[in-house]
Amino acid sequence: MGSFDETMVERKEIYSGKILRLCCDRVRLCDGSTAAREIVEHGGAVCVLPVTEKGRALLVRQFRYPAGTELLEAPAGRLEKGENPLSAAKRELLEETGCVAENWTDLGFIYPTAGYSTERIYLYLACGLQRGEACPDEGEFLELEEIELEKLFKMAAVGEITDGKTVCAVFRGKEFLQNGRNK
Amino acid sequence: MGSFDETMVERKEIYSGKILRLCCDRVRLCDGSTAAREIVEHGGAVCVLPVTEKGRALLVRQFRYPAGTELLEAPAGRLEKGENPLSAAKRELLEETGCVAENWTDLGFIYPTAGYSTERIYLYLACGLQRGEACPDEGEFLELEEIELEKLFKMAAVGEITDGKTVCAVFRGKEFLQNGRNK
Repeated sequence: MGSFDETMVERKEIYSGKILRLCCDRVRLCDGSTAAREIVEHGGAVCVLPVTEKGRALLVRQFRYPAGTELLEAPAGRLEKGENPLSAAKRELLEETGCVAENWTDLGFIYPTAGYSTERIYLYLACGLQRGEACPDEGEFLELEEIELEKLFKMAAVGEITDGKTVCAVFRGKEFLQNGRNK
Repeated sequence: MGSFDETMVERKEIYSGKILRLCCDRVRLCDGSTAAREIVEHGGAVCVLPVTEKGRALLVRQFRYPAGTELLEAPAGRLEKGENPLSAAKRELLEETGCVAENWTDLGFIYPTAGYSTERIYLYLACGLQRGEACPDEGEFLELEEIELEKLFKMAAVGEITDGKTVCAVFRGKEFLQNGRNK
């Protein structure tokens, strides 16, 4: 195909905060014209689907202020500066569920909102769990829920799980558990 | 479970643009303390997985400036003000692929980034396609690709499709096509 690349002509930083930075860029399109792009810069995140020996997934229920409701999600969190995704996944799993996992499977990454955010979310499957005490961040209120895998697959498929990264992790985890990795 | 609700104490609008609005809110947490929340307000979007009579999906390849690369995605776009999701899905499918579909299946919605954005993306499966001419928006450069469904399922599962909404639409579409709707 022809190249549809867009290149930055000008950047204006609107805001730089704790979890995101907002920029308004002017970009040159592939036909030579220019256009405005509103861009959220985000440092990336991880999301882990932890599965117990008994074939149950460990999820966390938490209130999501932007959604205005509680969501049932796979444990997840932002990358710290310079942190590699697998280390972040291990840290988040421990913080949110108290678990350490023996077997980690890389499920690839997603761009949750490629239209306006630079965020990548790295997905993992974590098996061989040793349970301990959760230690969530200050101001983070979570409730742990165990859900039988087959039930979770169905919940994600029919829209009862609405968190996008969790739906992606469940799908990729399901395919891996059922078919193995056969790229 | 106990209520983990967070309620707005104060809102400060940082930016109001073409596709998003950024606010910094102070919220009251369930333990009575307060915390800051950086929120992207977004009007919502739709994403359509169109499948031909021959069992091939129609996807669009486009450069995504925030990701800095081309992505292969299901046709998608933002809701216009007051537009209902199914109407938007029909409009976007027509604009981006030139197709009109006879059979529409509601695949539920996702929150792509529930941690900081209010965006919901409504997912659809579209079958019974009549082909015509695509008419993308000004400044929108797309290339249509047909991919055999089984191949697409695998690409989404192993991380070769990285656009989150597309992975979700492919998973839910696959489950529906293989098992029917059995909530």
